[in-house]
Amino acid sequence: MTRQYLEDFTVGQVFGSGRLLVEKDAILAFAKQFDPQPYHLDDEAARKSVFGGLAASGWHTAALTMRLLVESDFKPAGGILGVGFEELRWPRPVRPGDELYTKSEVLDVRSSKSRPDRGLIRVRTTTFNQHDEEVQIYTGNLLVPRRPT
Amino acid sequence: MTRQYLEDFTVGQVFGSGRLLVEKDAILAFAKQFDPQPYHLDDEAARKSVFGGLAASGWHTAALTMRLLVESDFKPAGGILGVGFEELRWPRPVRPGDELYTKSEVLDVRSSKSRPDRGLIRVRTTTFNQHDEEVQIYTGNLLVPRRPT
Repeated sequence: MTRQYLEDFTVGQVFGSGRLLVEKDAILAFAKQFDPQPYHLDDEAARKSVFGGLAASGWHTAALTMRLLVESDFKPAGGILGVGFEELRWPRPVRPGDELYTKSEVLDVRSSKSRPDRGLIRVRTTTFNQHDEEVQIYTGNLLVPRRPT
Repeated sequence: MTRQYLEDFTVGQVFGSGRLLVEKDAILAFAKQFDPQPYHLDDEAARKSVFGGLAASGWHTAALTMRLLVESDFKPAGGILGVGFEELRWPRPVRPGDELYTKSEVLDVRSSKSRPDRGLIRVRTTTFNQHDEEVQIYTGNLLVPRRPT
């Protein structure tokens, strides 16, 4: 897989991903470890909650999105290094049995003024379920090295 | 533990948390499952990376922060329900053996215009290591029900 340097990114580029099935057991295991709230752990409690049924922790969706990105064709040299996000939201819950995939669009490419060997790209990554509905959207700035001369 | 309704939140309130030790094994296990990049998985590769040593995935820090919040005195009725974040960044890596804790400050409290039974609070949560250095900062909007009349 070819690694991408700052020079390889252009505004408007879109990178896709494979798909990842979200099993109920994985939702429960993540919630137990990191987000032990009733609507992520228990069917009955979840039904009575604002989610109306068992839903994955948003942080689980974020972690699964990272997994999809790492395995995708989006391969910045030096790794996927998010220095900060300016937006992160979950417009729709992720349910047991959902299958997720991502699309990442390059919104901006800029050189670093202080460090000539690198730059930043601004990327919006949207995570979809199997009905092509948005379940997570974030826009982040990633550190990308320039191609060594 | 008393649950907090919209009426219980005021601008400037600060909620603390307990502490959570980040073991090396946990960093590796999280990375293997969700963020399999060399600097989160391998000491040698990490030393040569921008991190200069093994570092936890930012999403691991975010997930651990959620765990700290759920176990803290910050107990919005209906749960900790983030509808979206406007900022999320990791100013410093989390290392094996770090001990994390959080501080959450209420920045804004407002009623919902469309749904009189609820409102939104804007909260900035900072995650610190054992040297009181910031390792994660995010500002999010949380859904909170009004006290039932």
